[in-house]
Amino acid sequence: MDHAPQTLLLAMFVIFLSAKVVGELFERLGLPAVLGEILAGVVLGPYALNWIPANDTIYSVAEIGAIFVLFNAGLETSPGDLIRVGRTALLVATAGVVAPFVLGFGYMKLTGDATTEAIFVGAAMVATSVGITARVLADLKVLSSELAKVILGAAVFDDILGMVLLAVVAGLANRSGIEWLHLGILIGEAAAFALFMILVAPRIVHRMQGGVDRLSIQNAPLATALILCLLLSWLAAKIGMAAIIGAFFAGLMFADYAPRWRLAPKAHAILEFLAPYFFFSIGSRLNIGLFTGSVLKTALVISILAILSKVVGCALPLKGRGWRPALTVGVGMMPRGEVALIVALAGLNAQIVTQPTYAIVVFMTAVTTILAPPLLRYLFREGAR
Amino acid sequence: MDHAPQTLLLAMFVIFLSAKVVGELFERLGLPAVLGEILAGVVLGPYALNWIPANDTIYSVAEIGAIFVLFNAGLETSPGDLIRVGRTALLVATAGVVAPFVLGFGYMKLTGDATTEAIFVGAAMVATSVGITARVLADLKVLSSELAKVILGAAVFDDILGMVLLAVVAGLANRSGIEWLHLGILIGEAAAFALFMILVAPRIVHRMQGGVDRLSIQNAPLATALILCLLLSWLAAKIGMAAIIGAFFAGLMFADYAPRWRLAPKAHAILEFLAPYFFFSIGSRLNIGLFTGSVLKTALVISILAILSKVVGCALPLKGRGWRPALTVGVGMMPRGEVALIVALAGLNAQIVTQPTYAIVVFMTAVTTILAPPLLRYLFREGAR
Repeated sequence: MDHAPQTLLLAMFVIFLSAKVVGELFERLGLPAVLGEILAGVVLGPYALNWIPANDTIYSVAEIGAIFVLFNAGLETSPGDLIRVGRTALLVATAGVVAPFVLGFGYMKLTGDATTEAIFVGAAMVATSVGITARVLADLKVLSSELAKVILGAAVFDDILGMVLLAVVAGLANRSGIEWLHLGILIGEAAAFALFMILVAPRIVHRMQGGVDRLSIQNAPLATALILCLLLSWLAAKIGMAAIIGAFFAGLMFADYAPRWRLAPKAHAILEFLAPYFFFSIGSRLNIGLFTGSVLKTALVISILAILSKVVGCALPLKGRGWRPALTVGVGMMPRGEVALIVALAGLNAQIVTQPTYAIVVFMTAVTTILAPPLLRYLFREGAR
Repeated sequence: MDHAPQTLLLAMFVIFLSAKVVGELFERLGLPAVLGEILAGVVLGPYALNWIPANDTIYSVAEIGAIFVLFNAGLETSPGDLIRVGRTALLVATAGVVAPFVLGFGYMKLTGDATTEAIFVGAAMVATSVGITARVLADLKVLSSELAKVILGAAVFDDILGMVLLAVVAGLANRSGIEWLHLGILIGEAAAFALFMILVAPRIVHRMQGGVDRLSIQNAPLATALILCLLLSWLAAKIGMAAIIGAFFAGLMFADYAPRWRLAPKAHAILEFLAPYFFFSIGSRLNIGLFTGSVLKTALVISILAILSKVVGCALPLKGRGWRPALTVGVGMMPRGEVALIVALAGLNAQIVTQPTYAIVVFMTAVTTILAPPLLRYLFREGAR
């Protein structure tokens, strides 16, 4: 047997172990485990200790991991709920998308960055991390409260808006500049894809149900969902969007059937294995040596803008309900996560986003994710009194 | 975004889809799905349609898939049962290991093959596929019968003997010839490793239980099991054995705690996703153009020897109980599976086994796996009358 598998296995072991160990430490400190997994990548990656050199296979595994992060997010998002949650959530989401994008784009552009790079930073500031928000709300046992429903509904809408923006950004990454016709086609494609996947695709799954149940292979529903996940990921990439958008919508189309087929725990097991490679590789591409002088300053400013724009933007549509409920929703929408990191990584891979800009986005993600849980806990407890 | 992920996603989609579709067809014909997955690889692989060219990342994914095949097999094998099943199963297993190895090695050697190649063929004929046998017994609803227990117990022992032999074979593959001192050390290492993993490792898990339950990260037991699976796979490869031996023993050490931590369904979900890549890649390396004249003749002879040696070898220790029970056990031990294919692949990768020999082993695996289920069904039904 040649020695390549041995090297791969060692890298896979070290990455998984370190991600889980630092994740455990973070959980005990009351911080999200995902930040710990990213930190493990920073420390062991090529810019610091260099225990884990860059490796194509690991990056491929990381990419498949990203697909399962979004597939699981989709599985937990019922399209029916999305349609029902209605006006408030959509208003909150839209305000929470426009404000960060405008502020992020504006600041970068004013300080002399390229237009495409400014668009990437703006796009990375848009999407709230449903996963982290839902986790915090569940920990606080307030998931059934009205505010929590508004937050989650808006977070999902804004994930989709973020996805559409990501499609646009991924489209940009395939070109050297902005072609407005292309941009229009891409937005149209992304919107049509999103509408089809929310309104039509779940009905297709509904019709397929009986057929899937009659299949003879073991675990036919999981196999069917995985086939569609891979197909839609490839298709999304093929038509110029990011692969993970396809994965998210593949999850969404199965969301209503997940309990019946017990899909969620199975998809979650695959996620548990592969996601650490994704978050680790995000960290491993972060050059911490860059955080000096102007980069650190920009990172701090962008983080503050990311916090203010979400909190104020999302609170505004609810200002009639008093400052505390409005602020709770705003803070609930604050944490950025997977989508921001994926946007930044797409830009980095396409060499449109520079290393310092990538570092700024990762910094902003970490700051918003670290601050949201304690603030949210405080606001919900104050509200309960 | 560059185009590499798109190509990888397309390959992953096509492989998964074709493996599942042909697997479904096979299940409907009453054949094991795994043979269908291999056939999909033969048809789409480089030696036939060439839709899926050789790709390092896909091979790496396939290798991780093989690790989960054996990790799951280990999870389903309680070390306590192994120790309890006792004398009969061990006798059946030993006879069922010696007879095929001697016949396979002898025939290849007599017809002029190299000693190392003859050892590989003999080793590939040794291990009964626990997975396929257990599946057939479960389908026949006879799992609780005494004969079924003997078959399963023997299949597990013989898997372990096969593993030890595989360790030896993998050790050979690392060298150009046989060094007897090295061989002795390897057998000693493999035996010590096996004894440690069966007798000591489960106690370590027992002691770890409380600690694992107190961990804060989500799904800590799965994370712990995966860490040990990757560690032991790497360790096994590191000390000159095959990586999958480590994975099997990692599963074994968690087997008794799998129900409590619901590990099996989670590990199985990962298996469902990754295993098709392994079986597909087994098929894709099979050059069907080789099955002419002498290769076809050898393939047929080896298949007949593989059947006779297992049936007669495993039936002999039970001859006192009458011909039907003895024959039932013999036929139950007949199907070869993952281990045979992994042995052959290890040899092929190390360029010790030639393409024709690899083809012969895959052919033998297919024949024994196809014939066992109907024969077993017949014998159990006759016995019930």
